[in-house]
Amino acid sequence: MYDCAIIGAGAAGVSAALTLKALHKNFIWFGAGGLSAKIRNAERIDNFPGLPAVSGAKMAEIFSAQTAAAGIEISKKRVTGIYPAGEAFEILCDTEVFTARTVILATGVEAVKPIAGELDFLGRGVSYCATCDGALYRGKTIAVVCTEKEQEHEIEFLATLAQKLYLIPLYKNPAVQAKNVETLSGAPLGIEGGLRAEKLLLKDSELAVDGIFMLKAAMPSAALVNGLQTENGHVVINRACETNIKGLFAAGDCTGRPYQYVKAAGEGNVAAHGVHFYLAKKP
Amino acid sequence: MYDCAIIGAGAAGVSAALTLKALHKNFIWFGAGGLSAKIRNAERIDNFPGLPAVSGAKMAEIFSAQTAAAGIEISKKRVTGIYPAGEAFEILCDTEVFTARTVILATGVEAVKPIAGELDFLGRGVSYCATCDGALYRGKTIAVVCTEKEQEHEIEFLATLAQKLYLIPLYKNPAVQAKNVETLSGAPLGIEGGLRAEKLLLKDSELAVDGIFMLKAAMPSAALVNGLQTENGHVVINRACETNIKGLFAAGDCTGRPYQYVKAAGEGNVAAHGVHFYLAKKP
Repeated sequence: MYDCAIIGAGAAGVSAALTLKALHKNFIWFGAGGLSAKIRNAERIDNFPGLPAVSGAKMAEIFSAQTAAAGIEISKKRVTGIYPAGEAFEILCDTEVFTARTVILATGVEAVKPIAGELDFLGRGVSYCATCDGALYRGKTIAVVCTEKEQEHEIEFLATLAQKLYLIPLYKNPAVQAKNVETLSGAPLGIEGGLRAEKLLLKDSELAVDGIFMLKAAMPSAALVNGLQTENGHVVINRACETNIKGLFAAGDCTGRPYQYVKAAGEGNVAAHGVHFYLAKKP
Repeated sequence: MYDCAIIGAGAAGVSAALTLKALHKNFIWFGAGGLSAKIRNAERIDNFPGLPAVSGAKMAEIFSAQTAAAGIEISKKRVTGIYPAGEAFEILCDTEVFTARTVILATGVEAVKPIAGELDFLGRGVSYCATCDGALYRGKTIAVVCTEKEQEHEIEFLATLAQKLYLIPLYKNPAVQAKNVETLSGAPLGIEGGLRAEKLLLKDSELAVDGIFMLKAAMPSAALVNGLQTENGHVVINRACETNIKGLFAAGDCTGRPYQYVKAAGEGNVAAHGVHFYLAKKP
């Protein structure tokens, strides 16, 4: 069992990892896309103390070298759920399970905003995990909203099961190879239904489906952990970065504005100290 | 009138200054000792994202070059009081006054912990300002507790006024030139008295005095601003770095643990955004 699992590899995750390492904690660090795309894509950052007028690509390179030099590894597994289990947490990555005594959520905020109805129908026709739930839709009609080209193999896997698959790609140059896949353009607007999800709403049309897969780089924090308190899409924390769930901390953009690298890094540090303190109290 | 005055030049002050500059604010930045001694004296910092295994001296050098390159100047004037004045603040530096619409307190925590009775007798026999209050002790007996060799000229000034001056230096190699000065070793433990301060307590003795000057690099936050809410010596803030006084923000070690550079830098950023937001609401 790990002392802590850090979910997310932006500035908050990097800072939490460096500090947990300095505190000699045994932790696992999940970052599906490596150091966050948001960092890599920033053009120039002028107000990060210590890195004058740095590009996002350069900052990501520096963070990456720094964590590697500290002997910290990053797992590219995508976390699909976090479940409180007694005095610890089970962290699900598709079908693989890891356990940790504490969790630091540092999932960022971009590309994770849920669409209308998404969270309401989660587990009732909406899924974040092709591997986990694909088999439920054998011979059925599904829609797949996907934010990353890297997940096309998951879409192809779903296409082997479904009778018909509508793909709504939120990335450029989709190239899924399967006859039963129909690719549509435009952003998804919402999900409607009764007891279960029945329709995916697009700008000018709606798709009647049996299920909807939302395959994203990062999951909405509220969807990752059942019962997590959020407000306007942000995880609610106190100054110690504690959430409403004991042992679960949050840091960075997922906790709210300002969306700033150094604010995120500061909170990552505070959350790591929170973990340290929490573990010290519970030997 | 300035948009903001930043008090303190540690990691929180540096971060606040860089962000206020990026936000095109007109501000003044006070740091009596230049970039804080605490940064300069740290042996090695392993968990500041972006600066792997950096010495304190190197970090101070990098921060200094970064702020200079951004066109930010630091004033070495020592702030001795902050007074809310309508919709703005008056910042007193000995006898000079600056005005600003907002203030960010980033005074740190080291060397500022008040001794027992210090705050109780402030203005009643205890003073932080030789220039302001020296004349009150003409021909009298005073004690001077001083944390910095740089302030010896203030002690010599006081010695020209007082009949007898006990010096308790908290720095090495004191070299005050005056016949009526008696230098004592050991830390001061407390101040006692009735309506006014009457005694300075040392480990093995007590000094009967008419007044006590506490000449420190940084002043206790609670002493700088009348009515500022503190708890265990830390300024109470919310997640937006707002204090209980409108327009007054705080960031860094002065707001509490963990005493970490990146936590302080994160809060400096948040406080600067708080200033930005506050000024936008009050045109």
